[in-house]
Amino acid sequence: MTLETANRIKKVRQAAAAKEIEAVLISQPENQYYLSGFDGEGYLLITPQQTLLATDFRYIEQAKQQAPNWELFQITGSITDWLPRFIADLNIASLGFEAGNVTLATYRKMVKALDESQPALNLIPLEALVESIRAIKEPEEIEFITIAAEISDSAFEYIEDIIRPGMSEEDIAWQIEKYMRDEGSQTMPFDVMVASGPNAALPHAKPTPRTINTGEPIIIDIGAKFEGYASDLSRTICLGTPDDTLNKIYEIVLTAQLTAIDKIRHGMTGNEIDRIARTIIGQAGFGEAFGHGLGHGVGLAIHEHPTISKISAETISDNMVFTIEPGIYLPGWGGVRIEDLILIENGKAKVISKARKL
Amino acid sequence: MTLETANRIKKVRQAAAAKEIEAVLISQPENQYYLSGFDGEGYLLITPQQTLLATDFRYIEQAKQQAPNWELFQITGSITDWLPRFIADLNIASLGFEAGNVTLATYRKMVKALDESQPALNLIPLEALVESIRAIKEPEEIEFITIAAEISDSAFEYIEDIIRPGMSEEDIAWQIEKYMRDEGSQTMPFDVMVASGPNAALPHAKPTPRTINTGEPIIIDIGAKFEGYASDLSRTICLGTPDDTLNKIYEIVLTAQLTAIDKIRHGMTGNEIDRIARTIIGQAGFGEAFGHGLGHGVGLAIHEHPTISKISAETISDNMVFTIEPGIYLPGWGGVRIEDLILIENGKAKVISKARKL
Repeated sequence: MTLETANRIKKVRQAAAAKEIEAVLISQPENQYYLSGFDGEGYLLITPQQTLLATDFRYIEQAKQQAPNWELFQITGSITDWLPRFIADLNIASLGFEAGNVTLATYRKMVKALDESQPALNLIPLEALVESIRAIKEPEEIEFITIAAEISDSAFEYIEDIIRPGMSEEDIAWQIEKYMRDEGSQTMPFDVMVASGPNAALPHAKPTPRTINTGEPIIIDIGAKFEGYASDLSRTICLGTPDDTLNKIYEIVLTAQLTAIDKIRHGMTGNEIDRIARTIIGQAGFGEAFGHGLGHGVGLAIHEHPTISKISAETISDNMVFTIEPGIYLPGWGGVRIEDLILIENGKAKVISKARKL
Repeated sequence: MTLETANRIKKVRQAAAAKEIEAVLISQPENQYYLSGFDGEGYLLITPQQTLLATDFRYIEQAKQQAPNWELFQITGSITDWLPRFIADLNIASLGFEAGNVTLATYRKMVKALDESQPALNLIPLEALVESIRAIKEPEEIEFITIAAEISDSAFEYIEDIIRPGMSEEDIAWQIEKYMRDEGSQTMPFDVMVASGPNAALPHAKPTPRTINTGEPIIIDIGAKFEGYASDLSRTICLGTPDDTLNKIYEIVLTAQLTAIDKIRHGMTGNEIDRIARTIIGQAGFGEAFGHGLGHGVGLAIHEHPTISKISAETISDNMVFTIEPGIYLPGWGGVRIEDLILIENGKAKVISKARKL
């Protein structure tokens, strides 16, 4: 087990102890990988003394290789069958589980199985216990995210070279993906977005056969993945001369983005940061056209803690990595989004993504 | 709304009525797409008279385009805020929801919100209501799956042409993916698997930098996607001359697979079909080495109903599409899996995938 993993497990134990929970059952895939290095389907169980990994035949050899220091437990059948056996000898009084990952159907099976086998056991729903730990990145994680960002930055340079009027959104998206994969990116953390003209009014548009034209906005949103860690980058470009609307909207979004990045400080809450950009866009008269949050954490998952939005009370601190991505979307016309990935370092935002802006 | 969608909604209404449930809230992504054509993030609500779609700013324009006949409801904030308003005017006494998709955390929010706003409303967990309807494929769905299977078949021919000793698993996997995407496949339904030598002992191995050699088993498991529908195909190949172990294991797996396909009949249960292949492998002395189920349904999801396994009580009927994929895995040596996609037609199995076998 690497030092990092041991330290992560220690943090989980501390967080559980603070809630007076003896053992924690981990089912969320990225949390499982973060704590054990195992990326097959399974469950982790962390007690004050032990670390156990439950998985089935399909993944048991993989688990031996990826998580050599975990005690393996081979499961078969439904959770109703194996869960009581899994925890039978551990003598625990309380078991936390991930309420944001376990479905109601699975929860009902767990309750049924444990009510019969261990009626005294206290089953406690947890929210974001490991996710909160993951929000603070270690140096190696920042290094991996930075490499992923370098891949998406260079993909953006590449696409600026080859993009021409008459290419389809789908074709451009596929050229970008091939480039990033050839440059060492793992499977895409999310599907490449290329949205041109009116399609750019859809914040999460999928690439279509539409061919791109001069003068219109084209939103490109891409991410690469390195050693499991993602990057996330959006740029809005225009071939030929942008019209007045595009110039005006672009300037507002850019000002909102740069101002938010500049004003971020350790100790602010997600909603305070969101408000900086939202106020600028609102005062320019486009508040209704910026209907999504300002940003989200990025790491093993493409969307993780912290959340930077109107309703986020999360406090920002050093070594968090998240996006700042205001946008303005006008149905029928198109949209503009500008997104960078930032790291909180010495209490301020350091921009990780380097791709040039329009 | 196409005729197919109207018919699907009708089936949902009938299934709900049979359980004395007035309205159904759909949150599972493939179910939502199947019923509405909308593939953004959202919720559907189907009542005896209405079809409503709830989504947020990011997807509202997309929803207008993809689901023009659904009444749109724009949501913001947490489900605690919008759910009571969403159903306020519908005057329903019972609301079914998808217990296999809703997390316990979300369920608790729903209960809290509705306890306050509509204390008389009966909230009813449903399992596999839409999934059971999806298991029976319509002609157009079978056509899409067949096209996806043609893409994976031709990818297999392509890879047989270019594969050489000394290529890495990762490189082969990427060549296969590029080929399928260039041939019209959408994003992969699952990551391409190429596992050689001892790595083939891992049923769900990920491609590694290992270079392939002559004489060893190489499991290749691939799927394409067309119009949202997946295919799934596994072959085990060998460059040069297979050794005696490989010849023997291959023969057992092939016999198990062909026998199961041959004996499948309308009306059998999933576990009866599984037993046909499992008995053959068990009698050959390799029962312990075949530790996963025999197959799974394929459609909009790569794993869907019906399940073909030891514990499956699902009844097989015409127009179901599923895999038959026995395997034998020997740690340290490698493994063999042979997988075809079949359609139940006139009570028997018709093989959809056509790639040649060793």
